[in-house]
Parts: sequence; C-alpha cells; structure tokens
Amino acid sequence: MEKLCKGLKVIHQLSATTLWPSSVKPMTADSDGTQDFWPKGFSAGAVSANIKYSNRKDLMLLATEGPATAAALFTRNLCVAAPITLSREHLAFSPSSIRAIVCNSGNANAATGSKGLEDARAMAEAVAQELSINPKEVLVASTGVIGQLLPMEKVRAGISSLAATMQRQSVLDAASAIMTTDTFPKFFTLELELSGGTIRLSGIAKGSGMICPDMATMLAFLATDALIEPALLHTALERANRKSFNAITVDGDTSTNDMVAIVASGSGPEIKSDNSSDCALFYNALEAVMTFLAKLIVIDGEGATKLVEITVKGAADERDAERAARTIAQSSLVKTAIHGEDANWGRIIAAAGRSGAIFNQEDLELHFNDLSILKPGMVADFSEEAASAILAKESYTITLRLGNGTGEATIWSCDLSKEYVDINGSYRS
Amino acid sequence: MEKLCKGLKVIHQLSATTLWPSSVKPMTADSDGTQDFWPKGFSAGAVSANIKYSNRKDLMLLATEGPATAAALFTRNLCVAAPITLSREHLAFSPSSIRAIVCNSGNANAATGSKGLEDARAMAEAVAQELSINPKEVLVASTGVIGQLLPMEKVRAGISSLAATMQRQSVLDAASAIMTTDTFPKFFTLELELSGGTIRLSGIAKGSGMICPDMATMLAFLATDALIEPALLHTALERANRKSFNAITVDGDTSTNDMVAIVASGSGPEIKSDNSSDCALFYNALEAVMTFLAKLIVIDGEGATKLVEITVKGAADERDAERAARTIAQSSLVKTAIHGEDANWGRIIAAAGRSGAIFNQEDLELHFNDLSILKPGMVADFSEEAASAILAKESYTITLRLGNGTGEATIWSCDLSKEYVDINGSYRS
Repeated sequence: MEKLCKGLKVIHQLSATTLWPSSVKPMTADSDGTQDFWPKGFSAGAVSANIKYSNRKDLMLLATEGPATAAALFTRNLCVAAPITLSREHLAFSPSSIRAIVCNSGNANAATGSKGLEDARAMAEAVAQELSINPKEVLVASTGVIGQLLPMEKVRAGISSLAATMQRQSVLDAASAIMTTDTFPKFFTLELELSGGTIRLSGIAKGSGMICPDMATMLAFLATDALIEPALLHTALERANRKSFNAITVDGDTSTNDMVAIVASGSGPEIKSDNSSDCALFYNALEAVMTFLAKLIVIDGEGATKLVEITVKGAADERDAERAARTIAQSSLVKTAIHGEDANWGRIIAAAGRSGAIFNQEDLELHFNDLSILKPGMVADFSEEAASAILAKESYTITLRLGNGTGEATIWSCDLSKEYVDINGSYRS
Repeated sequence: MEKLCKGLKVIHQLSATTLWPSSVKPMTADSDGTQDFWPKGFSAGAVSANIKYSNRKDLMLLATEGPATAAALFTRNLCVAAPITLSREHLAFSPSSIRAIVCNSGNANAATGSKGLEDARAMAEAVAQELSINPKEVLVASTGVIGQLLPMEKVRAGISSLAATMQRQSVLDAASAIMTTDTFPKFFTLELELSGGTIRLSGIAKGSGMICPDMATMLAFLATDALIEPALLHTALERANRKSFNAITVDGDTSTNDMVAIVASGSGPEIKSDNSSDCALFYNALEAVMTFLAKLIVIDGEGATKLVEITVKGAADERDAERAARTIAQSSLVKTAIHGEDANWGRIIAAAGRSGAIFNQEDLELHFNDLSILKPGMVADFSEEAASAILAKESYTITLRLGNGTGEATIWSCDLSKEYVDINGSYRS
C-alpha cells in the first residue's frame, strides 16, 4: 500500500495532468484491501496454487452474479499465447454473457503448442464447473515465463480452492495474484453519477516488463456495474486504451500475453448510445481509470525510478507526433540519461530525428517542465542547475515542439537502470 | 593491441563466418602501430588538441598525395551535424578530387545551428591552408557530445600542429584520435591481387554507442590505392555497407554524425567497371574489411561482453528477415538475457512476433549454434546444460527459421549490461 501511495504522489507531481473528470469520485481501498472495492454484481478471489517458485498468490478469479457484457483488446504479437487464442474465441462466441475471468501468474502458457491450448481450455472448464456456468463464458489469461507447460494438477487444485476465497473480495489479493516482477499490486476505482443513478468503474492491472504500447501490452481487468451493450463497451475500451495503456512504454517489448478486458455486470443503471452526456462521462472515467493504472505500471517498470511524460507538439499530424514521442520514450540513450539525471538533450532530438517524423531541425523547441532547453535555430541556453533540479525529481515532463503542424501526442516512460539488467539477466532462474 | 587481438579471436569463434576471400591477404600492424599500414599515396597523423576533457589524441588527419576519388554514406537522422552537411556539399562538388579527411572527437558539432556550420567550414579551411589545397577537397567529421560549440581556437592550433605528425603514419594514433567511449582503436587492412597488380584496402573506425544500422551509424574512413571512378566506388561502398555497418546494432540509436567515407588515391592499378572479376574481388574485399571493422564496433559496444550473430532464415523475403533479425537484435529483454547467459528463448520469438515479419508461430525453428532449441509445433526440447555452455561463450549464433520463404538476413549485436547504464547515465559529466 505504501508503494501504491507513493505512486499516487508521483503521478500528481506531473504538471497539468488531470487525473479524472471533476464529476467523479476516486476511491482507494483500506490498508488491508478489504474495503468494498468492486462494482455491484462482482466477486473476486485469489489463492496460491504454487505455480510460481515463491509461495505468493498466483491464481485470480473475477466472477459476476449473472450474465455480463464484455469487451477486450488482445496483443498484436504474432506469437500469441494459448489463453489469448481461447479468450478471443470465447468473447466472439458470447460477448453478452461473460461470467468469469481466471488468470494465473508464474507461467505465460505461451509457445506451448497444441497442449497449451488444451490446458487453457481445461482452465475455463474447471472454472465453469466450480461456478456452474458454460466454459465459453470464461475468459482466461496467463502471465509469466514463455515456453513452459502449465502445471495443470496445481492449476486445477487452485481453481477448486478458489471458490472458498470468493467471499473475502480483497482487491489486494486479486491484484497481487496477477503480479510477476511487479513490486506492488495495482488497482483503482471511480464512482460516477449518470442520469439513471450511480455506477462504479474499477480495475486491476499488472506490468512490469515486456511493456510497449501495441494494443494492450500487459494485463488489466476492468469491472463496472453499468448496463451497457458489448459494441458500446468495446468502443469505449478501444478509445480509452489508445490514450492510456497504448501510451506507455517500459522497454519496447510487446508481450505474447497482453490483454485488457472489461466486464459490465448490468446491476446498475443503463448507458445508452443515444445519451451522449452519459456516454461521454463513462468514456472519460474509463480513460481516467485506465490512465491511472497505466501510469502505475510505468512507475513500477522493471528497475524504474522515474515517471517521465513525453509530449511532442507541433507535428505535421498526430501520427508523426506519436512516432517521435515513442522513439524518444524508447531510446536507451535517453532512458539512461534520465536515470543518470543528466540533461543530455542532444539524445532527445537525435531520437526524434531518426523516428520518421518530418521536421526541420532549425524549428525544434525543447522544454523540461517549464524550463526552456532549446530554442529555434538550435540555440541552447539554459542553467544546468535549473535543469538538474528538474531531472532530480521522480516525475517531470519533456516537451518537444517540432514546429510544422498541430499534431500532438503524449507517451509515459521510465528510466533504464542497472536493476533492469539485473532483473532481466536472470528472469527464469 | 591486446583488446584488438581478443576481438579478432572472438570474431573467429563465430561458426561458419568467412572473414575475407581466400585470395586476399589480411595484415595487422605491429604492436606500436607504426608498420606501414596505409595504401600507397596516403599519409595520416593525429594530435591531442585538448578538445576532450582527458589529454587523449582527439584530432586526426588523413591526406592523399594528389587528387583522389571518393564516396561516402551519411546518417539519415533528420538532426544532422554541421560536418555532415558540409562533407555532403564538398563531396557533391568534387567526388574526383578529395585530398583530406579531418576528424575530431570529444565534440559532435551537432545541434549547433549556423555557428556550427561556420566552424565546420573553418576546419576545412584550416586543413586546406596547411596542405595548400582547396577547402572543398576536404571532408570533415566530428564525434562526441551533441549541442556544444567546438573550441575553435584549440581546433585551429591542433590542425596547425598536425602537419608535423603526418610523417609518422601510425595507424594506432589515427584510429585512437577518433575514439569516444571506444576502449580500443579499430583498424584493418587487406592486400589483394588484381589483374593490373596489387592494391591495398585499409580502414579505421569508431563506435561505440548510438549504434544502430541506418545508413552508416558510426565513423569509418577507408583508403585504397586503386584507381577507380567515383560512381563505381560509391556502388561498391553502398553494397558493402548493407552487409557490414548497416548490419550491426549496439543500442538502436542512430547518431547525428554517422559517416562512412572511402578515398582512392589512384597510385595503384585501375579497377574498371567492365572487368567483372576485378570488380567482384574489390567488392568482396571491401565488404570483408568493413564487416571486420563493424564486428569490432559491436565487440567494443558500450558495456558489451558478447558478440552475437543473429540470423533469420526462411522468411517471406529479405526485408521480412531483416525486420525480424533487427527486432530480436534490439530487444532489451533479449539483450539482457544474453548478458545473463539465460536461455530465455521465449523472448526471441516474442520479439520476432512484434517485428512486422509475417509467419505462423507453429512453423518456428530456433537454434543456438548447432543446438536445436525449438522445433516446429512449438516443441521445446533441449538440454539446459548444453544451452548454457553455448551462452557462456563470448560469441555464438542465434538462428531463427520462420518457415515460409527463402528470405535471409544477419545482424550482429551485443548484450545489454549494467556498464552500459553506467556509461550513459553520466556521459556528459
């Protein structure tokens, strides 16, 4: 909880960042996570099934009281894990009747061939049996090491014992059970007033390596008690994803197991596509929850010590702005300079220069927070002390203006530290 | 010299790598580098002009006895350094009469606006005055920190004193003077027998950060005593570059100052475009010299401890093969696993899966050297001990077969270590 609170503080340090619409109410769980967190119509549980080497919780189940609508985004990596293939199939079959999401950590069930797909199917079947539902109403997710078969005996035993834990509803347990190299559980919930009454929008997520925006790039499970059609839910999810999970990067690697899913229990008021103010509020709140979780992922990026907001303005179009922002955010040289708190701004413009975005180098303008670093005509004139004071912060903004249009994009990134090398040099052992 | 010899050994470790055509003779310099290294018609010198903080040699001059033909490839980064702009202009003006290349390290003269271009021009003029030639016959290169003006008084004094050192012709001095974070000077020379007699082909190069293949990506200066037209020289350079300097990566960042130039003094026999066997021999020898220097750059990559040859075979076409090989080579997760000697092969196929190359994951085949790691159908069945023994080597090959065509490409890469973070967290200080 302490690290989560620190994360919240770091996010607030970012200047001019509106976390959520003023009409919605953020909520945090109690210190033991047992406070009523989920929207109406949901229950959640987690157990330690000994899939991981350690004895940590590694199996999570989120279930609805009745048939719920759902939408999801999946990795675009050509090497897709078996649970992704299965969840895609199940969601296509019954987007209006999803009843549960089961997720294990410690093993990705990726690159496991036909046996892997069988195992993912067996997970859905075991959950269906426990909850007396149809296996096709279950979404399955896995995260962890690639290329090893799931220990199915342990997984089956874990799913059986999950039923007993579903009453506690501790979001801390659920969010912890999907962690791999994450150092703290990630969750957030908002309440908002619609024309038909109050709804809640809650989510849990995990990082923290193989994080690069392309579709989803991590696991996040969102829940709401709104009554909403699958198509509208999908539109909202896709729209919010573009500006949240798709706008972060830790190391430029896209996982085989990425998935962002939202389930709507329908226990609360309805959101209709013809009520534009309800829709807009829901869209914005969903983006706020997802952006908050996305930033927590970056803050908890493997070995990360900084959260940096990189904005490129004045690009020919949004695509060009995104290209430049993404290349800067992913540059190892920029990330190590951020880590070393070194105002080596040449690396930032060099990264923009190789990004494919079009500009004239004489037009570039660069700021760290409000401090001007580079003026048009390649004039660098700033106080090293002032720059160092900004770079010493845990969170700040880098703004590059290309000067040939109105395109704008923002990406959140972290630094590259020796700890990242440590963590990833021996991940399997 | 010791580190260079070690590099040579590491390169030889790579299985099935032909370093140079059997008809050509490799030569190395004596331990003090004073052996006759350059082809006929060249002299070289180096001094310490105190541009760097340390007292190392930081200014190099390569000169020809008479007018020489030349060709060069330059960075495609939109943020180009002043010397690149100037050298492009000079080469376009007189490709048949280049007389000198001057290069400083310690300062990139990049992002320095119009004053930077003036300074680059002044460097060419100072060299022209010393050698009594036209300033347009001088190519200028710089490498080091971006965004600081050159200390022109020191540069001018250095150029003046360079004239005195031109007699020694120590390749060690010349190769050392262009170094930045390199830990050893890089040079190589070959002799080959053409129909009209013997020629020599020699080169020096520097790395070792901001190394990513896109056009040139570092500095390399090549010299030959062949008599050869600029157009033919350019074709040979471009062709050899694709398979050498453009096939390496250290950190995925492309510099603002990249340049590969070749100068032909014409003191030796002529290479005619209608003599295909002479042309082929020259092409192959040039590729051999450039590939050798390219591999030295990877071996000396910032913080690098491994040289890994990554080959993708069986791709739909060469472009797809290159895409996949490059993405694997640049993945931070793959590079840290290589550093940690961890056979985490899932990261390799995950990188291929996000590369944009088209394949069916069930067709993938993976080898470390000759050891089969992954068979079609996602069947991983290998001895961890055998894999570990290969990963413990300083150099090995990773071969991924996509299984849907005949496209093939090879990229040389290194690992990502904590030392890389150290070096780049405080580069300017």
